Amino acid sequence: MTHRRPTSQPRPVAKPQPNPIELADLPLRPELVGQEPYGAPQLDVPVRLNVNENPYPPSEAVRKEMAKAVANAAKELNRYPDREATALREDLAKYIGFSVSSDQIWPANGSNEVMTHILQAFGGPGRTLLTFTPTYSMYPEYARNTHTDYVTRARNASFSLTTDEILDAIDEVKPDIILLDSPNNPTGTTIPVAVIDEVCAASDAIIVVDEAYQEFTDAPEDSAIALLAKHGRLVVVRTLSKAFALAGGRLGYAVAAPAVVDALRIVRLPYHLSEVSQVVSRVAVAHAPEMLARVDELRETRANLEDWLRGHGLDVVSSQANFILFGRFADRHAVFEALLDHGVLVREVGPTGYLRVCAGTPRQTDAFRAALLDVLPTARRLETEED
Amino acid sequence: MTHRRPTSQPRPVAKPQPNPIELADLPLRPELVGQEPYGAPQLDVPVRLNVNENPYPPSEAVRKEMAKAVANAAKELNRYPDREATALREDLAKYIGFSVSSDQIWPANGSNEVMTHILQAFGGPGRTLLTFTPTYSMYPEYARNTHTDYVTRARNASFSLTTDEILDAIDEVKPDIILLDSPNNPTGTTIPVAVIDEVCAASDAIIVVDEAYQEFTDAPEDSAIALLAKHGRLVVVRTLSKAFALAGGRLGYAVAAPAVVDALRIVRLPYHLSEVSQVVSRVAVAHAPEMLARVDELRETRANLEDWLRGHGLDVVSSQANFILFGRFADRHAVFEALLDHGVLVREVGPTGYLRVCAGTPRQTDAFRAALLDVLPTARRLETEED
Repeated sequence: MTHRRPTSQPRPVAKPQPNPIELADLPLRPELVGQEPYGAPQLDVPVRLNVNENPYPPSEAVRKEMAKAVANAAKELNRYPDREATALREDLAKYIGFSVSSDQIWPANGSNEVMTHILQAFGGPGRTLLTFTPTYSMYPEYARNTHTDYVTRARNASFSLTTDEILDAIDEVKPDIILLDSPNNPTGTTIPVAVIDEVCAASDAIIVVDEAYQEFTDAPEDSAIALLAKHGRLVVVRTLSKAFALAGGRLGYAVAAPAVVDALRIVRLPYHLSEVSQVVSRVAVAHAPEMLARVDELRETRANLEDWLRGHGLDVVSSQANFILFGRFADRHAVFEALLDHGVLVREVGPTGYLRVCAGTPRQTDAFRAALLDVLPTARRLETEED
Repeated sequence: MTHRRPTSQPRPVAKPQPNPIELADLPLRPELVGQEPYGAPQLDVPVRLNVNENPYPPSEAVRKEMAKAVANAAKELNRYPDREATALREDLAKYIGFSVSSDQIWPANGSNEVMTHILQAFGGPGRTLLTFTPTYSMYPEYARNTHTDYVTRARNASFSLTTDEILDAIDEVKPDIILLDSPNNPTGTTIPVAVIDEVCAASDAIIVVDEAYQEFTDAPEDSAIALLAKHGRLVVVRTLSKAFALAGGRLGYAVAAPAVVDALRIVRLPYHLSEVSQVVSRVAVAHAPEMLARVDELRETRANLEDWLRGHGLDVVSSQANFILFGRFADRHAVFEALLDHGVLVREVGPTGYLRVCAGTPRQTDAFRAALLDVLPTARRLETEED
C-alpha cells in the first residue's frame, strides 16, 4: 500500500503568487455568471441605519453570561455539538409560547439557512416558489441556490395582500411553496393573520410566513404561529437577529408541525449549528425580557420618525417593523450618497425612488434627521406614482 | 392601508396539541422520501471513539481566551458579522503557509458547508461529481442537497488510487467535479500529491481534495495545497474539527485560487459565519501549536493500536489519519453492539465486515482494547475477501 509520494519524485514547491486563473475561466454554473456576492455595503461610518439591526448591544451582564457559557462549552469543544440542538429548541419553544413543543422548532445559522432547508425539502428543480414584491431581496437567492423556480406577483397599492389577491395568484402560478413576508421587508407592512388562515385553508402548498420583525409590531402575539395547530403545511420563520439584538449570533428558526421539522432534519447536514452558537443563543433566549427591552422604545422611535418624515412632505409607508420606507426621490442614489457624506448609512432598496432607514438610538436618529434636513432642499422628488 | 387583522374577526386560539400531519402527507421532494436524517449515533457512553474527534479538549488558558473573545465580540453582537470574515481568513492563511493569501481562503460552518458552496457553484443539475469508494459517507448528501449527479468508482485493493485509475474513471464518467479524500475516511489511506498533480494537469474538472485529516499524516506539509499555484481548478478543503480539536466550533475552510473563492462568495448566503464562530476560531488558530500539541501522541497511539490489532490476528488498513479500519467480522453489527455493552462506541462504516475506531486518550484506548479482547473470542471472522 502506498501512502507516501515516492521520494524520488520532485517535491512540489510553494509559489509566492496565487494561481492567476480568472472567474471567467472557471466552470461556474451558467446562471451564476456575472452575479455578484449579495449584501448591503458594509461601511464603517458613524451612523449605520441600513440593515435593520437593533442599535442596542447586549448588556454587560448578558455578555458576561455568554462568555461564561462559551468557557464552559469549550471544555468539550473537541466534540461535535448536539446535532439536534435539543436544549436550544426547548428554550425557543418556551419563548415562543402558543403551547409549541421543542419538536416544532428548527434552528439554523440565520433564517437564511432555515429558508434554504425549507426549499431543499419542499422546493428544488421542477418546483415553484411564489412570493409578492416588493419584498425581501434575499428570497431570489434562496430560490437560485436550491434551483427552485422563483415567481413573483405584485403586492397591492398598500404593499399588503388580501385573501383574494393571494388566491388569484395561486390559481395562476400553482406554486409548491408560498412565501409571505409579514411585516414585509422593505415596506414594513403586514398581512393579516386571518388572510394567512384563509390561504392555508384554500391551498395545499407549503406556506412560509417570514416573521423576522414580528416582535416590533403593535401586537406581537398576533402571529401566524397561532395557526400552526390548524394548518400542517404552515411554517413560520423567526430570528434572533432583529428585535433580539443578536444579528452577530446568526440564529434563525422555523416553527411548524413536528412532521415539517422532520423533513428539514433530512436535508440539514449534520452538526449545522455549532455548540458555540447554541450556547450563546441560549443565553440570549434566557434573557428575552432584557434582550427585547428596547423594542417598545424602537417602536416609538419608528412612529415618531414616520411623523417627522411626513411632516417634511415625504411619502412614508406606515411600518410595523423597525424600519421605514420613505421617498420618493428622482435620484435616490444621490440622496443615499449625500446622507453617506454626512456619515449616515441608509439602504437603497424597494420601489423606485424610495430609501429605507431603520430606527436607531436617539443620537443616531437625530443624526439621520439632521443629515436629511441638510440634504432635502436639493433632493428632487418624484411627483407622480410610477411604480 | 390595513396592517392589523380586523378586530371584529375571531382571534385564533392556541391549541395545546401540535398539528398531527405526518411526513408522508407533506410534499417532500420525491428523492427524499424514506430518507433518515444523517448522522452517527450520538450516545452518552464512557468511551466515544466513533466520529474521529480529537479526544483532548482545549486547555483552560485557551478556553479563557475564547470566553474573553466572545465577551468582547458580544459588545457588537447586535450588529451583523463581517460577511467576508477577513481577520479569520488572514489568520488561516498564515497558519496554512505555502505563501497562500487570505483571498485564497474560504471558511464556513464546517467542511459540510464549504463542500455545499463548492457544489452550488460548480455542480448542480446536469453536472456530475465523481468520487472513489469506500469514502466519506457525507459526500452523497452534498450531491443530493445540490442536485448534483453522484457517480462513484472503486478504489484499488490498497484503498488508494493511481493516476491511471483516476484518469480512466474520468474518461468514462466525464465529471465536472472530482472529489478525492486524502487521507480517506474511513480507510485512512492517502493519494500521493504527485498523483493529484498529474490528474490536475490532465483534467479540466474542478478537483477537490478533502484533507480533513492531513495534520495526522506522517508529513502534513506534503499537501495538495503545494499544487495550488500550478492548478487553478484545484480546491483543498481543511477543517478545525479534527487535529485542531474544535469539532464543536464547526469551522471548515477551502484553500484555492482567488477566483475559486470569488465563485464561492457568489453562492454563499450573506453572514453565513457568525461573529462568535469567527472569534472562537481565531483564538484556536492563534494557539495552533497548543491545539495541535496532541497530534504526535495520537499518531503514535494509532500506530501502536494498528500493531496491537494486527497482533490479535485482525485485518487492519494502514492509516495516515487518527482512525483505523479493522475487521473483518462475519457480523460487524454484533461486534459493534458487544463493544457498546462495554461502554465503547466505535463506528459501523466502510467495506463489509470492517469497523472503524479512532485514536483516543491512553485511558480510552485501553478501554477499547480491553473491551475488544473480551469480545473477540466470540466474534466470527470473514475468512475470504468478499468486497
